[in-house]
Amino acid sequence: MQIAIIGLGRMGGNIARRLMSHGHECLVYDRSAETVSALSGEGARGAGSLEELASGFSGRRVFWVMLPAGEPTETAIRDLAGLASEGDVIIDGGNTFYKDDIRRAKELSEKGIHYIDVGTSGGVWGLERGYCMMIGGPDATVRELDPIFDALAPGAGDIERTRGRHAEDTRAERGYIHAGPAGAGHFVKMVHNGIEYGLMQAYAEGFDILKTKNSHLLPEDERFDLNLPDIAEVWRRGSVISSWLLDLTAIALAGDRNLDHFSGNVADSGEGRWTLEAAMEEAVPVNVLSAALYARYRSRQMATFGDKMLSAMRYGFGGHVEIPQ
Amino acid sequence: MQIAIIGLGRMGGNIARRLMSHGHECLVYDRSAETVSALSGEGARGAGSLEELASGFSGRRVFWVMLPAGEPTETAIRDLAGLASEGDVIIDGGNTFYKDDIRRAKELSEKGIHYIDVGTSGGVWGLERGYCMMIGGPDATVRELDPIFDALAPGAGDIERTRGRHAEDTRAERGYIHAGPAGAGHFVKMVHNGIEYGLMQAYAEGFDILKTKNSHLLPEDERFDLNLPDIAEVWRRGSVISSWLLDLTAIALAGDRNLDHFSGNVADSGEGRWTLEAAMEEAVPVNVLSAALYARYRSRQMATFGDKMLSAMRYGFGGHVEIPQ
Amino acid sequence: MQIAIIGLGRMGGNIARRLMSHGHECLVYDRSAETVSALSGEGARGAGSLEELASGFSGRRVFWVMLPAGEPTETAIRDLAGLASEGDVIIDGGNTFYKDDIRRAKELSEKGIHYIDVGTSGGVWGLERGYCMMIGGPDATVRELDPIFDALAPGAGDIERTRGRHAEDTRAERGYIHAGPAGAGHFVKMVHNGIEYGLMQAYAEGFDILKTKNSHLLPEDERFDLNLPDIAEVWRRGSVISSWLLDLTAIALAGDRNLDHFSGNVADSGEGRWTLEAAMEEAVPVNVLSAALYARYRSRQMATFGDKMLSAMRYGFGGHVEIPQ
Amino acid sequence: MQIAIIGLGRMGGNIARRLMSHGHECLVYDRSAETVSALSGEGARGAGSLEELASGFSGRRVFWVMLPAGEPTETAIRDLAGLASEGDVIIDGGNTFYKDDIRRAKELSEKGIHYIDVGTSGGVWGLERGYCMMIGGPDATVRELDPIFDALAPGAGDIERTRGRHAEDTRAERGYIHAGPAGAGHFVKMVHNGIEYGLMQAYAEGFDILKTKNSHLLPEDERFDLNLPDIAEVWRRGSVISSWLLDLTAIALAGDRNLDHFSGNVADSGEGRWTLEAAMEEAVPVNVLSAALYARYRSRQMATFGDKMLSAMRYGFGGHVEIPQ
Repeated sequence: MQIAIIGLGRMGGNIARRLMSHGHECLVYDRSAETVSALSGEGARGAGSLEELASGFSGRRVFWVMLPAGEPTETAIRDLAGLASEGDVIIDGGNTFYKDDIRRAKELSEKGIHYIDVGTSGGVWGLERGYCMMIGGPDATVRELDPIFDALAPGAGDIERTRGRHAEDTRAERGYIHAGPAGAGHFVKMVHNGIEYGLMQAYAEGFDILKTKNSHLLPEDERFDLNLPDIAEVWRRGSVISSWLLDLTAIALAGDRNLDHFSGNVADSGEGRWTLEAAMEEAVPVNVLSAALYARYRSRQMATFGDKMLSAMRYGFGGHVEIPQ
Repeated sequence: MQIAIIGLGRMGGNIARRLMSHGHECLVYDRSAETVSALSGEGARGAGSLEELASGFSGRRVFWVMLPAGEPTETAIRDLAGLASEGDVIIDGGNTFYKDDIRRAKELSEKGIHYIDVGTSGGVWGLERGYCMMIGGPDATVRELDPIFDALAPGAGDIERTRGRHAEDTRAERGYIHAGPAGAGHFVKMVHNGIEYGLMQAYAEGFDILKTKNSHLLPEDERFDLNLPDIAEVWRRGSVISSWLLDLTAIALAGDRNLDHFSGNVADSGEGRWTLEAAMEEAVPVNVLSAALYARYRSRQMATFGDKMLSAMRYGFGGHVEIPQ
Repeated sequence: MQIAIIGLGRMGGNIARRLMSHGHECLVYDRSAETVSALSGEGARGAGSLEELASGFSGRRVFWVMLPAGEPTETAIRDLAGLASEGDVIIDGGNTFYKDDIRRAKELSEKGIHYIDVGTSGGVWGLERGYCMMIGGPDATVRELDPIFDALAPGAGDIERTRGRHAEDTRAERGYIHAGPAGAGHFVKMVHNGIEYGLMQAYAEGFDILKTKNSHLLPEDERFDLNLPDIAEVWRRGSVISSWLLDLTAIALAGDRNLDHFSGNVADSGEGRWTLEAAMEEAVPVNVLSAALYARYRSRQMATFGDKMLSAMRYGFGGHVEIPQ
Repeated sequence: MQIAIIGLGRMGGNIARRLMSHGHECLVYDRSAETVSALSGEGARGAGSLEELASGFSGRRVFWVMLPAGEPTETAIRDLAGLASEGDVIIDGGNTFYKDDIRRAKELSEKGIHYIDVGTSGGVWGLERGYCMMIGGPDATVRELDPIFDALAPGAGDIERTRGRHAEDTRAERGYIHAGPAGAGHFVKMVHNGIEYGLMQAYAEGFDILKTKNSHLLPEDERFDLNLPDIAEVWRRGSVISSWLLDLTAIALAGDRNLDHFSGNVADSGEGRWTLEAAMEEAVPVNVLSAALYARYRSRQMATFGDKMLSAMRYGFGGHVEIPQ
């Protein structure tokens, strides 16, 4: 199929590459002409503007927008909507808030443009491993685009089949699902990321306990000398908590056992926050997912004003003076 | 009554003073001779050793130990047990773990010594306001010591009577209770402190939100210029969240609106931890009390190893590079 | 002053009463004619419609809307805007989301109407104790309405002055503040309620530990027989955790020591959720406030799907069968 | 090697089987004669008592105790210590608290008996997949027992090698580590289980959000119709959150999409609690691990007393009546 990719960063570039390697024809655009020209050298058809991109199609246009959520995506989709004709498709493969999908799908459908939201997981490994995709939008369009999704997905590979599974639809087993109408794809991806935060923080807290057990701050007879790279490694093998995130942890620790290359200043994308908002709209208690998000906030802070308030109250009622740091 | 006070720090010294001002005779001991002599100047009978203290009584001996929990208290009680006779009383007024009380009461009862545990709240304000006390031990002994507790307690004062309360026992209304057998006093005090942590952290988080709403890190049109001293003040007056801790917060903010005198490095005593342990023994979920304790741990830390692990995983799956701090 | 009160529920009715008792003239409207007529019997001037209400003023109109947040308030304000003239004032005294205030203030200012948001704390006790108010809006209008706020506020009363406080503006000490521009009043009130949730849950968890310590599910030698009404009572007297919420707890326990009159099915208003959203917008970690909100969600649930998933995983990896409930 | 297995439950029986299938000679004992005789039928040498078991060895005795932690394990080890001679080895393969290991190792070393603690993960799948083991104890003994551990471990298998790993010690890559001195094995296993709770709860909360998004309690236009079995399946394939626990979840959902076979009443073993205690001893904040444990407590409760207290306070300050359940 012919497909345009808008945004050739870490994700977009590799998506184009994987599509081309599966025989699809990619028209590509990025605000950096250099990036466009690099990918052109790999077989893509580069465009210097969205207009040029839109006019490069021989038939029905399919645009895959792969830009940061928020303003950049919003602007690109508005601009593409101006260039698209009835029957064309705009796909948002980024990390958009699902309510924005619902709004956009409604607006675009008035012009006869089909809107598809794709939550895409796989990060920098997707080119090689394939992308896990959660798709929202009208059924007919999702089916028409199946060759695209099939090419991007990891396929069944050598991952063991789920015992007891008898679904006729084999898409989930090949790494993508049609989750529901507009917004459903990004909703499922959002929850995926919320879970991801929780999993990561569970490992982080556990390793903090292990690491601190080696600390010179503990009395000598309470101290161990635990080998963290070995522990991460052994847990990959037959333990209940083996996972891909643990594999990545083992890789990181193998090369740098104290993780000295990192400062521990952890960013958070919108999806952690939106997951909490969704939980609140549904009145679902999510203590673990919240704590995981807040741990990231805290990782970026020095002592907060609230910390000082605690000290002030303790001084107030007990005359307690702070331990110097 | 004649009573000995062992340990004349912030709490013990004032307890002696309040007892003397109510006509009790205080024998006092502290490892600092200077402190003993200072209090002797205020009417107490000072002793240079526990032996001298024990021999100073004219009748049945009552020892009030007011030392840091753990080793200091444990040692003092063991030494006093060696000096005490059948029928004497040892009171632990500190912050002892309630299971230690149960063990000690059993050991001492074999020698005919009565053991009383008193959880004492009131901090540096107790001399003036009186101490709120939660008492554990045998009923007869608690009743015999009533003049002591009555003197230390705040009394009914001008605190409004609880609507609908018809208890014959007026002790709670005068500021002390006999909570139950050995350990019950410190158990109730431990939970009191666990709640205290939770309350403090609730205020701290709320004020953090207010303070950050003024921050130059927010876009200008999302910013307010909230006056924190005024907010603490107004909440003292007719709002649902008025409390003594809020009064203390208002005092702190009145003098130093940015709390620049504090670093926000917050200590925690054993009681927060024990409250969590007790909750775990009872399988009671205590998310708020835990979070409050952990906030204190975190206040004393820079980026943790766990934070670095999060960064390492994010780099691993997404190629995400940390934002410089 | 002449002032109209729209909405005569638990809050609105008492606000009218307190204003009248301070010599203000109240025009009142409620969709229930019965309620209007009841308050007319107490000296208010009742109206059968908003139109009638609006035409009842002799000069500049001041409308105090005291309705549930969301649709009811939004509708009333839109209707009043249609009836109001340049220079008139609309006050929202309810629990509106502060961003709605900012939007409304902008819209109404285009018509020359002044908009004021008032976060009002005090609940059913406000008539007697006065209301604690946090006000947002233009400075001139807030000053013009001062007689209204002064009448509603508790006044300095016999609450002790905050040591070290030297503010020229005495409003905070009399129970109301001008927090800032449109939205600032409800923002501060929102955080107030967030803190309230946290405080309540801290007490709730502590009392859960105490209550469970009496439980027949514990081994007999680990059990106490703690008297909860007495504990709540004694903590009111000289302890660090005394507060108005504790006073209310003591009242509840005095009349019903097992709280058998309550099911423990706890509602939450929007303000707890908004506080979390505000914290997320500011990247402030609020573990305690979140946990307090989630405890309410959980109080309304039976076993969740997530609980079942835990059981399913445990069965999957360990063959663990659930304990029958 | 000759080895005795004490306790032939889900874990112990399969450990014996896996050892026999690797050519080791197993002496087995269980308090159920039936269980012993069943395993004898598979090639083990059954014993009717610990005495008979101990006398069955031809040389140095190695006892692997595989019993529930606490009293059963404690008693068995005390009894075996009475039967063992200098140089014999007692292994505790269960879920013992690591401080008990430290105590026991010290006591047994006085008699010249070697004590080894093995944290064993793998659950009911271990017979087939092998067991992941974390071992504590003296280095020489651990090396002597290497054939046992090697047989039980999964081996390198087809799990991809960790990039950048260059450790000389290949044991971790074959699924077992010598973590350190007595207690270190169970300490690492304890943290493993703490992490396990956190991971499980992260998935559980995420699926709760997904499930509730389908709920008839939501307004119809906010509802999706998400297919949970498909979502679990697709996340196994190329997503960041793929893991063995997710594989098990997918199996459970494939057979029973609403998990109607489960009540959601979730047990917790000691290890979750001990992980929190260890974290507290180290002052490491573990909000996620705590929340995960507390979610299990809560799953076993109806409305708590604390919930009722919230209702009582809300009634007290706001006249709020509970929503009927």
